[in-house]
Amino acid sequence: METAEIIAIGSELLTPHRVDSNSLYLTGKLNSIGIEVDLKVVAGDQEARLEQVVRSAVERSRLVIATGGLGPTEDDITRKVFARVLRRQMVLQDDILEAVRERFRNRGLEMPANNARQALVPVGGRVLENRLGTAPGLWLEEGEVVVILLPGVPSEMKAIFEESCLPLLRQRSKGSHLVTRVLRSTGMTESQLDEQIAPIYTPYKNPVTTILSGRGEIQIHLTGRAKSRQEAEALVQRVADEIHLKLGDCVFSTGDRSLEQIVGECLLRKKETLAVAESCTGGLIAERMTRVPGSSRYFLGGVTCYSNRSKVEFTGMPPLLLEMNGAVSAEVAKSLAEGIRDRMGSSIGVGVTGVAGPSGGSPQKPVGLVHLALAMGNQVEHRECRFSGDRERIRFWASQTALDMVRRRLL
Amino acid sequence: METAEIIAIGSELLTPHRVDSNSLYLTGKLNSIGIEVDLKVVAGDQEARLEQVVRSAVERSRLVIATGGLGPTEDDITRKVFARVLRRQMVLQDDILEAVRERFRNRGLEMPANNARQALVPVGGRVLENRLGTAPGLWLEEGEVVVILLPGVPSEMKAIFEESCLPLLRQRSKGSHLVTRVLRSTGMTESQLDEQIAPIYTPYKNPVTTILSGRGEIQIHLTGRAKSRQEAEALVQRVADEIHLKLGDCVFSTGDRSLEQIVGECLLRKKETLAVAESCTGGLIAERMTRVPGSSRYFLGGVTCYSNRSKVEFTGMPPLLLEMNGAVSAEVAKSLAEGIRDRMGSSIGVGVTGVAGPSGGSPQKPVGLVHLALAMGNQVEHRECRFSGDRERIRFWASQTALDMVRRRLL
Repeated sequence: METAEIIAIGSELLTPHRVDSNSLYLTGKLNSIGIEVDLKVVAGDQEARLEQVVRSAVERSRLVIATGGLGPTEDDITRKVFARVLRRQMVLQDDILEAVRERFRNRGLEMPANNARQALVPVGGRVLENRLGTAPGLWLEEGEVVVILLPGVPSEMKAIFEESCLPLLRQRSKGSHLVTRVLRSTGMTESQLDEQIAPIYTPYKNPVTTILSGRGEIQIHLTGRAKSRQEAEALVQRVADEIHLKLGDCVFSTGDRSLEQIVGECLLRKKETLAVAESCTGGLIAERMTRVPGSSRYFLGGVTCYSNRSKVEFTGMPPLLLEMNGAVSAEVAKSLAEGIRDRMGSSIGVGVTGVAGPSGGSPQKPVGLVHLALAMGNQVEHRECRFSGDRERIRFWASQTALDMVRRRLL
Repeated sequence: METAEIIAIGSELLTPHRVDSNSLYLTGKLNSIGIEVDLKVVAGDQEARLEQVVRSAVERSRLVIATGGLGPTEDDITRKVFARVLRRQMVLQDDILEAVRERFRNRGLEMPANNARQALVPVGGRVLENRLGTAPGLWLEEGEVVVILLPGVPSEMKAIFEESCLPLLRQRSKGSHLVTRVLRSTGMTESQLDEQIAPIYTPYKNPVTTILSGRGEIQIHLTGRAKSRQEAEALVQRVADEIHLKLGDCVFSTGDRSLEQIVGECLLRKKETLAVAESCTGGLIAERMTRVPGSSRYFLGGVTCYSNRSKVEFTGMPPLLLEMNGAVSAEVAKSLAEGIRDRMGSSIGVGVTGVAGPSGGSPQKPVGLVHLALAMGNQVEHRECRFSGDRERIRFWASQTALDMVRRRLL
């Protein structure tokens, strides 16, 4: 059992508004015990169609995990369809009925008749307790095939899978462990990065290397497979170290931590404090810095100066400087950085000004032009960037570059 | 042809890191011409498995749309597998080969031999031009079944579908139109809202009503089906109007516009300007306001006052006020609102202070407690809220409530 198929059941997952994200969690957990997902299906609550899907799944896959459709309403048909495909009778299980009734009683309610459905279990099924809701999960075996039914509510699905399924699956999948390590980098294009590291990872089939470019960063995923977790980790570590050495400063994180977390850690470690004055990023840098719990220890605050008056008022910028250079200029970025540092009393000040678009550009100062400055001690660093894409992308890249300037300054 | 099946092809879609989002776009477009999606499959690049998936799809569905796996690398097997299932030979189409070669020439490059693959077309296939990339789409018909192959890159997929596929599909799906209207509301819980509007929508089978609760808002989706677009629109309009009347102010948008867009429109219309002083939201309100292009016409700026010093420095708050009431208090929120308005010279000022958590709470001032104030003219409005959930949720709800206060003040 080294591969699994996941079936997400629910009509709302076939609308333009909802995506099946339960399978991402399940995939991560399965990968961690050496099982890969090789097919995912999203089906609605049409019985005939679902039956066909389930029939194919149990024929072709050794592990089938279905989420959703275990609730008490008419639409919830998962149990019924799986029982039919596996040719099992449904029996009413008294202890489950009592548990469901109890949950309602605890909330001072009487159990609606509909909910009795949730106590129907296909013969031979193993009930997986749901501490967080009324619909229990189910574990079924048919020959060599394992079928797991889980509720669609993410918190319930996760709790049941973690507590009841993972330990059982881990026993079965003995013999193989997958370990994934993610290196996150910024400041290079995907092709520049790949050119540098391809000679390192290409010789290896294990770990497998995947390069994913995301918003403002490029991620390098290394996945190693081995008989033990230690062995898999060693395989991954060796290649990760080589890549990290090659890319140097460009790698900002070797784990799940975001750039704003890393910047926060650098500030704490060096006992520095930060304040920002933002024009085109409109508060995004402050917002990102303050996403991190405890950021008040090193982030003192920021100003969003959308008007010229606010630039003068809050950073003490000489009005003449604005007039002479225009709001989008190196001089203004530097003045924002120094001004906000002095006003806030922080040790580092960052200033950002640019044209986020879509309008407001000119031949001299096109959409995407951004000036960034960092003031620390007697020095003011300046960068001029031209970002492409829409307003959101330009703003994000500007914030990413500003944070990365702080990170590199503190290395 | 009233239903469709979508197959997303790509190994990265079977990792814990990537979700198939192309199908959401396709579903929206298909719905708009009366076609519903009743099955979605995500497959990797393993040929045998993909072949089985494709075979089932063309057997059971009248419209099959596949995305991904049309590129020039070894892994891209979509064309090959579909040709095999549909028993079509592949022929090299010279005009496509020339077009691919041309794209490379324009960038000053020679076409790698691999890319010749992209000019292989199953016999009888109709080539769908790709203006944005090298991999063209394909349209195949087999009896009554229509098969559409599209590249996985979202921008290319969308351009080809919009330009080449929609017009052809619209012709075929004549006889049925789906129209969806979304009402977005805030300020009520899902059950409060449902209690009010269930008597309105329950009697109707057409339009279908779905209630989705998202971050800081509840969306009511009404989908009507009829022979003509006008008829479908009329069906939806009637129920939407009734619901809107019932919910009144709670509905902030009857279209796709976000709360920050709506607030911007209200400010413009009433010729008012806004400035914000944020503590616990850390710049999120400013960031949301400035996401909207042209927001500098009504949003003058903001401050993120994470330290007490910055509260005093940037809003002129008397230090004694802070000392007497503590940073999280009605008085401080009001002083932030008035202070930022006066400093920025805006007509409206908003102040927010609270405990976003996870630490920093106390029995008197628990995590989730947020004070919000709005200053306009001689009046200062105040609200005290207790939000539940994690840091991100508390911050978002605080920003949502602040924006909604501005919206309601301007109604």
